[in-house]
Amino acid sequence: MKRTHRAMITCPDDLGLVHTITGIFFQKRYNIISNHEFVDQEKKFFFMRTEFSAPDENDLDYEALRRELLAVLPSGTNIRFTDNRVKNLILFATKEHHCLADLVIRAMYGELPARICCVISNHNILQSFVEKFSIPFYQISHEGLTREQHEHRVMEILDKQIFDYIVLAKYMRVLSPEFVQSYRNQMINIHHSLLPAFIGASPYRQAFERGVKIIGATSHFVTEELDHGPIIAQNVTTTSHASSAAEMAQAGRDIEKIVLASAVKLVLEDRVIIDGNKTIVFE
Amino acid sequence: MKRTHRAMITCPDDLGLVHTITGIFFQKRYNIISNHEFVDQEKKFFFMRTEFSAPDENDLDYEALRRELLAVLPSGTNIRFTDNRVKNLILFATKEHHCLADLVIRAMYGELPARICCVISNHNILQSFVEKFSIPFYQISHEGLTREQHEHRVMEILDKQIFDYIVLAKYMRVLSPEFVQSYRNQMINIHHSLLPAFIGASPYRQAFERGVKIIGATSHFVTEELDHGPIIAQNVTTTSHASSAAEMAQAGRDIEKIVLASAVKLVLEDRVIIDGNKTIVFE
Amino acid sequence: MKRTHRAMITCPDDLGLVHTITGIFFQKRYNIISNHEFVDQEKKFFFMRTEFSAPDENDLDYEALRRELLAVLPSGTNIRFTDNRVKNLILFATKEHHCLADLVIRAMYGELPARICCVISNHNILQSFVEKFSIPFYQISHEGLTREQHEHRVMEILDKQIFDYIVLAKYMRVLSPEFVQSYRNQMINIHHSLLPAFIGASPYRQAFERGVKIIGATSHFVTEELDHGPIIAQNVTTTSHASSAAEMAQAGRDIEKIVLASAVKLVLEDRVIIDGNKTIVFE
Amino acid sequence: MKRTHRAMITCPDDLGLVHTITGIFFQKRYNIISNHEFVDQEKKFFFMRTEFSAPDENDLDYEALRRELLAVLPSGTNIRFTDNRVKNLILFATKEHHCLADLVIRAMYGELPARICCVISNHNILQSFVEKFSIPFYQISHEGLTREQHEHRVMEILDKQIFDYIVLAKYMRVLSPEFVQSYRNQMINIHHSLLPAFIGASPYRQAFERGVKIIGATSHFVTEELDHGPIIAQNVTTTSHASSAAEMAQAGRDIEKIVLASAVKLVLEDRVIIDGNKTIVFE
Repeated sequence: MKRTHRAMITCPDDLGLVHTITGIFFQKRYNIISNHEFVDQEKKFFFMRTEFSAPDENDLDYEALRRELLAVLPSGTNIRFTDNRVKNLILFATKEHHCLADLVIRAMYGELPARICCVISNHNILQSFVEKFSIPFYQISHEGLTREQHEHRVMEILDKQIFDYIVLAKYMRVLSPEFVQSYRNQMINIHHSLLPAFIGASPYRQAFERGVKIIGATSHFVTEELDHGPIIAQNVTTTSHASSAAEMAQAGRDIEKIVLASAVKLVLEDRVIIDGNKTIVFE
Repeated sequence: MKRTHRAMITCPDDLGLVHTITGIFFQKRYNIISNHEFVDQEKKFFFMRTEFSAPDENDLDYEALRRELLAVLPSGTNIRFTDNRVKNLILFATKEHHCLADLVIRAMYGELPARICCVISNHNILQSFVEKFSIPFYQISHEGLTREQHEHRVMEILDKQIFDYIVLAKYMRVLSPEFVQSYRNQMINIHHSLLPAFIGASPYRQAFERGVKIIGATSHFVTEELDHGPIIAQNVTTTSHASSAAEMAQAGRDIEKIVLASAVKLVLEDRVIIDGNKTIVFE
Repeated sequence: MKRTHRAMITCPDDLGLVHTITGIFFQKRYNIISNHEFVDQEKKFFFMRTEFSAPDENDLDYEALRRELLAVLPSGTNIRFTDNRVKNLILFATKEHHCLADLVIRAMYGELPARICCVISNHNILQSFVEKFSIPFYQISHEGLTREQHEHRVMEILDKQIFDYIVLAKYMRVLSPEFVQSYRNQMINIHHSLLPAFIGASPYRQAFERGVKIIGATSHFVTEELDHGPIIAQNVTTTSHASSAAEMAQAGRDIEKIVLASAVKLVLEDRVIIDGNKTIVFE
Repeated sequence: MKRTHRAMITCPDDLGLVHTITGIFFQKRYNIISNHEFVDQEKKFFFMRTEFSAPDENDLDYEALRRELLAVLPSGTNIRFTDNRVKNLILFATKEHHCLADLVIRAMYGELPARICCVISNHNILQSFVEKFSIPFYQISHEGLTREQHEHRVMEILDKQIFDYIVLAKYMRVLSPEFVQSYRNQMINIHHSLLPAFIGASPYRQAFERGVKIIGATSHFVTEELDHGPIIAQNVTTTSHASSAAEMAQAGRDIEKIVLASAVKLVLEDRVIIDGNKTIVFE
């Protein structure tokens, strides 16, 4: 596959931004493959994702390009460059297989531009599955450890890995603010989304008892506030009174794996720009 | 259209219930057109909706049939009879037209088995629309009235009407527990459903600021607890960062009218059995 | 509402097109509100929709702007300008109300940026509905007329109207190639879409007999080849064996009105560019 | 899991059928767990699925029960009994992994009540994947063989297996009428469903060139007429002009695996009754 690059640029809105930015790409004879812009008309803020290729890869220097862009763009500009290489993921899991298995198989067959470096779990239930695919599996039991001690051991593994994103593929532990801050904008979570929202334990039991007709899932970046980070993708499926709480939970798992796979794909393709507590998704 | 009848029977589960019930219909030579049963395996409770016709309508006496059924069914049995006649609705509205207009047109063209007796609103904005269709419109302004005084005036109108259900077609006033109790299981509401749930004013603004990707609506029976009655129907539509708060609200209105129309149709066809705070919907 | 303008530009792809085009807008101090581009990588063709406002409306001259753009863009460039004014629609109908009523009400309440100039029908069934809204209704019966004679009478009415688009809101007559050519890219149709496709009469009966689980609708521009013009919008709803052919047809009508309304909105907002037999839709 | 049984009964409609049938279950003290009936009002035909348990499994004799039911039901009655055991599947595949991998993992984790006996493929591409899960893989290359010779070799393997259903998990070979007849009502297929239907090779390329907005999939029983057997499940996903033909094909694969898994689940739970060229699906 030909190498392509992506520039994600955010800055206060101004006249002529697209002209200015594309001018720099044009001067360098970079070929723009696709271009998406969005202006938040309320905040007067500009977002752009440009996918481009360079006639000679040796001529492409992200830092030089960044300097040239910053020189002509307003104060408050932020620029991120990436390319279309396969990115490295670390999966965190607990006992449930559905999201993990789906990501492993999609990565294996190139349906996601991802290599799964390793799986970290506080249980060993998924070990034999993961090892079928020759993916290293690290069990870090939380038994007898404080949250800090457990996270410290997890970070020891992470420190030895080179990775782009951590995917919480049904990792059923709350992460400390310190851990979250260490991997800010790098951790993708999935959780159920029910209408209405049910607080507390056994959400599917509560949904069953309330007779909901729709079951959904939300994938989001992880922030300090549990399950309240910027939303990347959401989807729903239907259910009825005839479904037991267990069947609703199965329907929930089915939609969770679909939503997580699509969120991870959007992130790996660099289509998601985080803006405070929301996202701009250029599909 | 040939007259048909519906029996909605609920009782503690037991061996042979279907056999016992259908035996009574069979003895009377009633023709069963459709039959739906559901057993709540946890509560051991039985729900049945039977649509049937009688060879001679003069032979059909709901109270006699009820007595015969109660004589052979367990203690705790509840039976409701209805038929397939066009039912009478009263619509409550405030300023928004979308749900009201959709119901008026569906009733007019027979897409709903309903006659709209009148519209009651605390504003007069929808009056000219409603009167185009020769439907009486009563404006009961809430200005200068306590909740009780206002509801009292509304009830004066209701007392003069013969109706089956009240549909809150975007009626933006909270109803008192007394009012709710007066029309228990007779009032159908629609409200937005957002993931996550946003508490407080301007939900679409909050949804916009959070960057939700899905907008939904829930139709439910009205109970004392605001927006928490038994759910009849739910549905969602997709949105994105590119939608303004106003466009999200428009998408919300579009899905509200679809969900409300389908909930009203289910209720008018007697497909909905209320079971505590949930519903059994026999589609 | 502040006046805004839209430029839809299509041309062979080339390096620097976005830079070149936005440069002309920038020189004139036009404010770009939103910008969408798409490159068909196979055909190497470029599509762009730019929504912009001018600081002084008197300075804005579409023809002058077109000349400046054409001077710097490749041979084969096509440019269309429009603005955000309410556009004029003529509705064609036959006997079914559902699409027509939905469009009339959306236009009335500003949910569509449209004014409905008149309705033309070969029957008079919808006349009293349309006239409730003070919209002129012309019945042109096809009885005793050849297709050409009938279309000639329809065109006599059209010739007296100023309109942007004709919407075939369940107009059940086949149009001649001559008629289609007279209003090329101006006529929007809606028809059912079933999986598999059923050829011939009574498609819902055939769908019922085949036991389909999904019923859909497609809105498209009208071309000489019946029901095969460029697709603007599609959507589906679910059904089951329990639905009669008549209920499937009702579900079909429900999805038809949703799809047609969304297609008309996309067209009125100038979000649809026709490219041969397909569309580019910038949502 | 407690053993339960399912009776699928079809017969000409008559008064008192439910009463008669449930009477026999009642006499034997069988506990009805769920009961679904449907009457085709046009054909006057009755369909019933009853899930039941027996107080003493030793007392339950399908053939005796069948005789008792046939003795009291109309001529033309058909009865099928099954139970809730894990059923045996054989998967046929060619080169594509997506449906096969999804079924393998669902079976492995009990999301489907299925054991996969073996996989038969005309290629060896999927062999290493399948063998990770200790599932026998038989490659029967079609190279140099006539259709009959190839099918003969496949049948040699099938003859040695005990299985309930064959799932064509993207098996890209046309089966002879003889083969289809040998496994009538036992083979489940999945294929893309596009609106409009595109005849001939490269359907996703055709869909791309036509600019479709929806991509679907249909799962059906295999009959002699290619892709025209009774439909079990259908679903769709959305696409846009921005998707390449390859991305549309990927979206097609994603929806294919969802639809096939849900169809297989419905069949394994004995919720699907075939009625000529359609199905009754009791969800």
